[in-house]
Amino acid sequence: MKTHSLLMPLDMHVHLRDGEMLQNVAKLTSYTFSGAVVMPNLVPPVKTKEQLLAYKERIMLACGLEIKEDEFDEFFDDVGLSGGDFEPFMTLFYDNYSEDFLDEVREDIFGIKLYPAGITTNSEGGVSDFDVEAMRETLETMARMDIPLLVHGETDGFVMDREAEFMSIYELLASNFPDLKIVMEHITTKAAVEMLDKYPNLYATITVQHLLITLDDVAGGMLQPHLFCKPIAKRPEDREALLNVALNAHPKVMFGSDSAPHPQHAKESCGCAAGVFTAPIALQVLCELFDKHGKLDNLQSFVSDNAQSIYGICPEFKEVILEERPFTVPAKYGEVVPMYAGETIGWSIEDVL
Amino acid sequence: MKTHSLLMPLDMHVHLRDGEMLQNVAKLTSYTFSGAVVMPNLVPPVKTKEQLLAYKERIMLACGLEIKEDEFDEFFDDVGLSGGDFEPFMTLFYDNYSEDFLDEVREDIFGIKLYPAGITTNSEGGVSDFDVEAMRETLETMARMDIPLLVHGETDGFVMDREAEFMSIYELLASNFPDLKIVMEHITTKAAVEMLDKYPNLYATITVQHLLITLDDVAGGMLQPHLFCKPIAKRPEDREALLNVALNAHPKVMFGSDSAPHPQHAKESCGCAAGVFTAPIALQVLCELFDKHGKLDNLQSFVSDNAQSIYGICPEFKEVILEERPFTVPAKYGEVVPMYAGETIGWSIEDVL
Repeated sequence: MKTHSLLMPLDMHVHLRDGEMLQNVAKLTSYTFSGAVVMPNLVPPVKTKEQLLAYKERIMLACGLEIKEDEFDEFFDDVGLSGGDFEPFMTLFYDNYSEDFLDEVREDIFGIKLYPAGITTNSEGGVSDFDVEAMRETLETMARMDIPLLVHGETDGFVMDREAEFMSIYELLASNFPDLKIVMEHITTKAAVEMLDKYPNLYATITVQHLLITLDDVAGGMLQPHLFCKPIAKRPEDREALLNVALNAHPKVMFGSDSAPHPQHAKESCGCAAGVFTAPIALQVLCELFDKHGKLDNLQSFVSDNAQSIYGICPEFKEVILEERPFTVPAKYGEVVPMYAGETIGWSIEDVL
Repeated sequence: MKTHSLLMPLDMHVHLRDGEMLQNVAKLTSYTFSGAVVMPNLVPPVKTKEQLLAYKERIMLACGLEIKEDEFDEFFDDVGLSGGDFEPFMTLFYDNYSEDFLDEVREDIFGIKLYPAGITTNSEGGVSDFDVEAMRETLETMARMDIPLLVHGETDGFVMDREAEFMSIYELLASNFPDLKIVMEHITTKAAVEMLDKYPNLYATITVQHLLITLDDVAGGMLQPHLFCKPIAKRPEDREALLNVALNAHPKVMFGSDSAPHPQHAKESCGCAAGVFTAPIALQVLCELFDKHGKLDNLQSFVSDNAQSIYGICPEFKEVILEERPFTVPAKYGEVVPMYAGETIGWSIEDVL
């Protein structure tokens, strides 16, 4: 039976939520990933050092891990040596933070996540206009301190145009702050893919669902709430462009699941919340997809090596062995319905070492 | 208080369903409309004279009306004098019917509805390819007998392109059968609007929701299953084009609600059925919309006069008096959640004479 080994898989964009949901989903990420970039859009959003450290502790406990005493020392030097089997890479919710504040939190944060106001789940406190001069002090300080800016890049325009319209803001940020590392999170369009080679300081994450689905899968037959996310899946030519860079291991592209759990009742109702839950199936589905295209050898770059290079991290050893053996996805994980619920996918997790 | 009177409103495209659903929804249409074109996509589809007459009888009973003995005589001459307060205009599900068959059913049918196979609810038995020569005998006979062809115009392409892609099929039909009256049902795009002035034998119906919403309302915020229909709502420029012809009483455009009830559980679930239920609120919402744009005087053409001219019908007298008085839309009509459920709209039905 065909097997494939992945070393130190990283999920560079995940929503672990809080409270009961955190308890239900955290281990599904920490089981197969060496580390994951944890988004800060809680209620209230993560904006202080205290909130961030307390959230990290809740995550570690939910994963059944302990925080080591020296964990916050020399973060970028020894991240691979701390945090046990799984490292949550913590992010702050963007604000025009002062240099003093950034200095204080530098060792505790992996990046700062910028949301346009109201653009997705719990983003009401985000940025409402992109006034470069108002953001300059913060963004220049971030560049100097090598704090990456992670961006949910959508305008408030027509739903199919929001990401493409945001390209001018990426250009504004990338050109005004050439030393700032900017990650275009969960890109969904050909327009965003084309930006990658235009600015040296622009990078991107791509989810598993945006490599597989288009708006047709969400709303072309019956309406599928469990495939509804933000940004919404786009057109076939957009999916092709995303697939092309992922399968060919474009060095500026990283896997970020954007796995975003909601309880079933919040998805199957009048007013369905945005988010696709893929944490427990992402690696299996990616293996099947890359194998189908004869690109399995490039998956290691997409799910780990590129992120290690871009962020300069060295995760603790973890090896995930996958096998080409059918796996029937559970109908639910707790109260959360995953992508492909009840369906059979082609690859399974064989072992985690 | 401002009032507005509408004479003989007609819904030129409605789904009344069958069985229990028919009992629940039929009177909501017959109360305010003089007549309605009833779609034949039942299970099994309406394809014989017996099915059609039996369905018509079930509709009349559900409306609390009786079928008069002479109702099927000289249908187009005396339709206005038969059928009581409400006339269901019956349609057959398209097939390559023979001349003999069409001759036999001519007096009983108002038109024949063509569905591309599998394109919407219960359309599996529709046309799977548009081979003009295979359809020629039927369509020429229909033209000779003045039987209109009502078309659900979508290809099986990408969901946002399906209607625009279908324009070439409308052109094929309109140019090959210049004497056939072809109605582009529930159009949703600028591309379809532009076809109206290109071929003299092309007409269109427009729903109330496509004058009001775009894909943004369906999937731009939370996902809204009760606004999900086929064809799906399109882009802002499409809505503008539709509004422009409706508000300005383009003579080839008729109101057809495409009101399509599904029980709540079929809408709020994993795999939501397509259809927006507007029958009980359509006239009120249209009054508010036309009034907002200062075009209330054109509403009579859109909701009745144009259809009378296009189809050559003379409905029995009915006057619906609407008033600019807030109306809170019920959360449900039976098991069906309407558009604007629980919300307050600006106009109410004051009286029906």
